[in-house]
Amino acid sequence: MKISELSERSGVPIPTIKYYIREGLLPGGRRTSANQAQYDQEHLERLRLVRSLRDVADLGVATIKQTLEAIDAAAAEPPELPALAVALRALGGPRTAGGQDAGEEAHRRVDRLLDDLGWQVPPESAARSHLARALAAIDHHWHGGVSAEMLAAYARLAGELAQLEIPQTWDPHREPGEALRYAVLGTVLFEPVILSLRRLAHIDRSHRLAARRGGSAPSPEAPHPPR
Amino acid sequence: MKISELSERSGVPIPTIKYYIREGLLPGGRRTSANQAQYDQEHLERLRLVRSLRDVADLGVATIKQTLEAIDAAAAEPPELPALAVALRALGGPRTAGGQDAGEEAHRRVDRLLDDLGWQVPPESAARSHLARALAAIDHHWHGGVSAEMLAAYARLAGELAQLEIPQTWDPHREPGEALRYAVLGTVLFEPVILSLRRLAHIDRSHRLAARRGGSAPSPEAPHPPR
Repeated sequence: MKISELSERSGVPIPTIKYYIREGLLPGGRRTSANQAQYDQEHLERLRLVRSLRDVADLGVATIKQTLEAIDAAAAEPPELPALAVALRALGGPRTAGGQDAGEEAHRRVDRLLDDLGWQVPPESAARSHLARALAAIDHHWHGGVSAEMLAAYARLAGELAQLEIPQTWDPHREPGEALRYAVLGTVLFEPVILSLRRLAHIDRSHRLAARRGGSAPSPEAPHPPR
Repeated sequence: MKISELSERSGVPIPTIKYYIREGLLPGGRRTSANQAQYDQEHLERLRLVRSLRDVADLGVATIKQTLEAIDAAAAEPPELPALAVALRALGGPRTAGGQDAGEEAHRRVDRLLDDLGWQVPPESAARSHLARALAAIDHHWHGGVSAEMLAAYARLAGELAQLEIPQTWDPHREPGEALRYAVLGTVLFEPVILSLRRLAHIDRSHRLAARRGGSAPSPEAPHPPR
């Protein structure tokens, strides 16, 4: 297809497509004459991914480029390599400021947790450091920190989330590059869904609690005991 | 306590404390002479909250101020009012760019979901719009969008998360302002824990899948069927 059709089908203006090509976010088309080039389905797919990462995850051009390179590199590796770990590293952590650097202790805690869970996560995965930093921040800002039981409960729910999601993203019939694109996109697309639903659930629970507290003396038992 | 002790106990430098007072993030101390003022436990607590919101949630001064005002306003209201909804509104949404504006249909979908769940969430809650925007982004960027079954499964897990967390944050014996401070802080402190754990779980599952795929022909069944 010509660049005009690529623009039409992707909804991305032609000058922006040219800008992405110059910045290395999109490969150039196959030249057919001095001032014409042909683009294919691969260009369209990549263009859609670029826009998704930009619009949904609010990523800048440099981070998008790193993420795409990581996806390409990981897709080219033998499948034993932890491709998703590599691709997610480029994406950067969930929203948290620098704040505390996670100390040794927080890192050891993450190691122990993953060992206990039996999760196979390569030592160099960025998500390990993100979790360590988040735990260090809680130790610093939250009275009593997070208990081993709470952390295990969070991990159990995260495992259930992944079980729910994996059939959608890691279809074994998919070609590795496509599977990775889907996995990275799924990471960023569904994070706001999960966090918004959690906030809504908190509002619901606090609402019920407040109504109860407004009525009579506070009830001594937690209204929603953990199962 | 004097400002020097407040600084020592909070770890916040004196000039920064003075800056927060000028910006309205912290009430001034009780004047005891022309150039001395006394601060109390309330100042220390608030200072810690300001630092948490800054370090953990990466919020700017203006957003922190709005969040504190919302907490104060909500805490002063009768407990029937949806205090947490008000306080969370000021906090802003989870990380997502402007991107798509959620259309009518996405908003209606959120309304239906909350109705089906029986969750009590005031119509003006910002988290409703965040969810609608996240769903609109998925419809736009994810082939097939998100099914009603998947959305219900996400909601079920979010409800379990809240059940797990509510006993920690919404202790009915706590005074409303303190409970709100905790709830807002818990929202921002634990979001990165949840997202990091989800990424780790995905890496683990994709690792297992890739190893399996590397070994022999792809297995037709999903390796982790949803329960």
